[in-house]
Amino acid sequence: MSQTTCGNLIIGQSGGATAVINASLVGAFEAALADSRFDGIYGMQHGIQGFLQEEIVDLRAESQKVWSGLLSTPSAALGSCRYKLQGDDPGRVIEILRRYNICYLLYIGGNDSADTAHQLAQAAQHSGYDLQTISVPKTIDNDLPITDHCPGYGSAARFIAQATIDSTMNTISIPWHYPVKVIETMGRDAGWLAASSALGKRDDVDPPHIILVPEQPFNADRFLAQVEHIYRRLGYVIVVAAETIRDEQGQPLGASKQTGNDAFNHPLLSGTAECLVELVKQRLKLRARFDKPGDLQRMASNAISQADREEAYLVGKMGVQALLHDESDKMVTLVRHTEPVYFCTTGLAELVQVANVQKLMPTSYLDESRTMVTKPFYDYALPLIGDPLSQHTQLQKIGVRR
Amino acid sequence: MSQTTCGNLIIGQSGGATAVINASLVGAFEAALADSRFDGIYGMQHGIQGFLQEEIVDLRAESQKVWSGLLSTPSAALGSCRYKLQGDDPGRVIEILRRYNICYLLYIGGNDSADTAHQLAQAAQHSGYDLQTISVPKTIDNDLPITDHCPGYGSAARFIAQATIDSTMNTISIPWHYPVKVIETMGRDAGWLAASSALGKRDDVDPPHIILVPEQPFNADRFLAQVEHIYRRLGYVIVVAAETIRDEQGQPLGASKQTGNDAFNHPLLSGTAECLVELVKQRLKLRARFDKPGDLQRMASNAISQADREEAYLVGKMGVQALLHDESDKMVTLVRHTEPVYFCTTGLAELVQVANVQKLMPTSYLDESRTMVTKPFYDYALPLIGDPLSQHTQLQKIGVRR
Repeated sequence: MSQTTCGNLIIGQSGGATAVINASLVGAFEAALADSRFDGIYGMQHGIQGFLQEEIVDLRAESQKVWSGLLSTPSAALGSCRYKLQGDDPGRVIEILRRYNICYLLYIGGNDSADTAHQLAQAAQHSGYDLQTISVPKTIDNDLPITDHCPGYGSAARFIAQATIDSTMNTISIPWHYPVKVIETMGRDAGWLAASSALGKRDDVDPPHIILVPEQPFNADRFLAQVEHIYRRLGYVIVVAAETIRDEQGQPLGASKQTGNDAFNHPLLSGTAECLVELVKQRLKLRARFDKPGDLQRMASNAISQADREEAYLVGKMGVQALLHDESDKMVTLVRHTEPVYFCTTGLAELVQVANVQKLMPTSYLDESRTMVTKPFYDYALPLIGDPLSQHTQLQKIGVRR
Repeated sequence: MSQTTCGNLIIGQSGGATAVINASLVGAFEAALADSRFDGIYGMQHGIQGFLQEEIVDLRAESQKVWSGLLSTPSAALGSCRYKLQGDDPGRVIEILRRYNICYLLYIGGNDSADTAHQLAQAAQHSGYDLQTISVPKTIDNDLPITDHCPGYGSAARFIAQATIDSTMNTISIPWHYPVKVIETMGRDAGWLAASSALGKRDDVDPPHIILVPEQPFNADRFLAQVEHIYRRLGYVIVVAAETIRDEQGQPLGASKQTGNDAFNHPLLSGTAECLVELVKQRLKLRARFDKPGDLQRMASNAISQADREEAYLVGKMGVQALLHDESDKMVTLVRHTEPVYFCTTGLAELVQVANVQKLMPTSYLDESRTMVTKPFYDYALPLIGDPLSQHTQLQKIGVRR
């Protein structure tokens, strides 16, 4: 036997959860199980924050039923954290890793998590501890650099695209009741999710009619003119807005920090959608309301993209393969191929090039109005959401004349 | 041939749409098509409001593909209205019916629609016009009397129940990030939909932990004490609130009519969920946020209850059967049977007993706290949502010790 075990592997999940982040965990675990070089296969509860409390679990002790169930379980089964390493945290992490003989660390997360993994790789090097660290991408925000896209985005995008089709059906049935609908998506800096609302749009009548992304400055007069124009043409308007929209001075809508003395009875608005609704009601005198699916867009178990789930599994598995190939301080990336049809392989990127870097929507994915996506965006995003969306049937409505 | 055609049938849809109201339309159309006594089979666009504009379409001209597609199409394909007959409207309707030789009217809708159908039945009688009128129930609010339940409710309830399970997965993964989540459901007077959030709850740890229904007066201190108690026990709290919750003086939360001079920058709150979130933040100093699925709960095409769809088809079909049996001025009802397993047959109720009557949640469906449902509610509502909900897998989390 030429190979001996060289220690234990630990896997963590970090940052905002997605509908498929557990598929990455399963992919990583199954790849680790298949190789004799790993002794213990551990999980950290609540990422590095729990690890600092030595909340470490034995993944080999989990049943096969758990692993197959996790494939379709949204959210981070190990628990997540949003914790930035501080002070002597890196040194303490290395000390605990040493104590548990852990020399492989796989960290599934977004920008901040890549930064954490990078800091740990550096700390290990400085203290002479033999640690390999690989980061596995996940984020519904799709804002990680280098990788073609991020596991988690495809399922959230699928949810938003179908929700836009479905929710609009209600507006169409009685347009004058609430002629303006605003759907608020997640996305504090990047508009990828708001943009995905157009993935079911086949023509200029289909929703959405206006997409507001964080990358483009918001101008109330221009927005209201657009709403009015579309309302006159169609009789209703579907707006999709990211949760953070900034005006030309960079001030987010509804970000007023004021709170009244009796905030329960008279609290101030905090949501983008609600601000837009108020704006339309007051300036255009049109009835408006909003849908805010909130955490549902990252968690909906009945809107998971099969393509997304498979890629989430793949990056988890390839993260472990990278460790086995002596790679460290890197993030697994998805590499797109289009011939003969869409598929992805994986690559590796230096963590230092990923950590804390945000990939925003390129301007080429928006048309001249900056409120609608272009064909290149469809080419980019459609393969990520899996099976075709449900498009609904309409009556032909052939009139009876007497 | 003993039977001759005696005229034309018209079908309308009215009130708030549901995910399965088109199944009732298909059921009615197919039953009508199967009987030679109907000559024309017409649809009214946007209910009685469109009919007054003679917006009448020929349903026989629609293709078979349309009918099969409509079975899984949410919302009202004929268009809906929220229109109360006024002045000489009933007389004008009778005049148009006469002109188009329509002697059968099937009206799919809720309380208000039942009232409309009843008024038309009376107007026809007064003017000596031979009209049969049958109403077919639909409403996500489940608030029609006499019928065991209302088609449309089962699918909306399924959506809310699964959304509560799914969205909570995010909270559990990192409870301290937003320990309090509020999910706002529809329901202005009746708590049926808010209550349905508990249909996936298996024990007192599962969500939701607090259900606020319109039928029960809201007391802020009692609510906050409950939130704090559950927070101390679990570390997080999932609250489901109907869109209208009234305090002990009958005043809805967030119903302040005040608007500032600059309402875009400083508008006032209008939503129940946002009020509750502010209350928790300010009084308990806990981070809180809300999901408001809005129209998605009535429209989500991937959360349709198969049982609900089949019953919606059934009531549409039986509405036409009732017309063929010379019934008039009545609403089709669902009659529950439990032996050997749950199934429904249909009955008929006098429209005068249905029109404008609301069936609220009985107190027996709420426990002593008035914020959680009882076993009789599960027995009542579980069969309506169709297949079992997706319950998610959790890791056993067996600790590693060194």
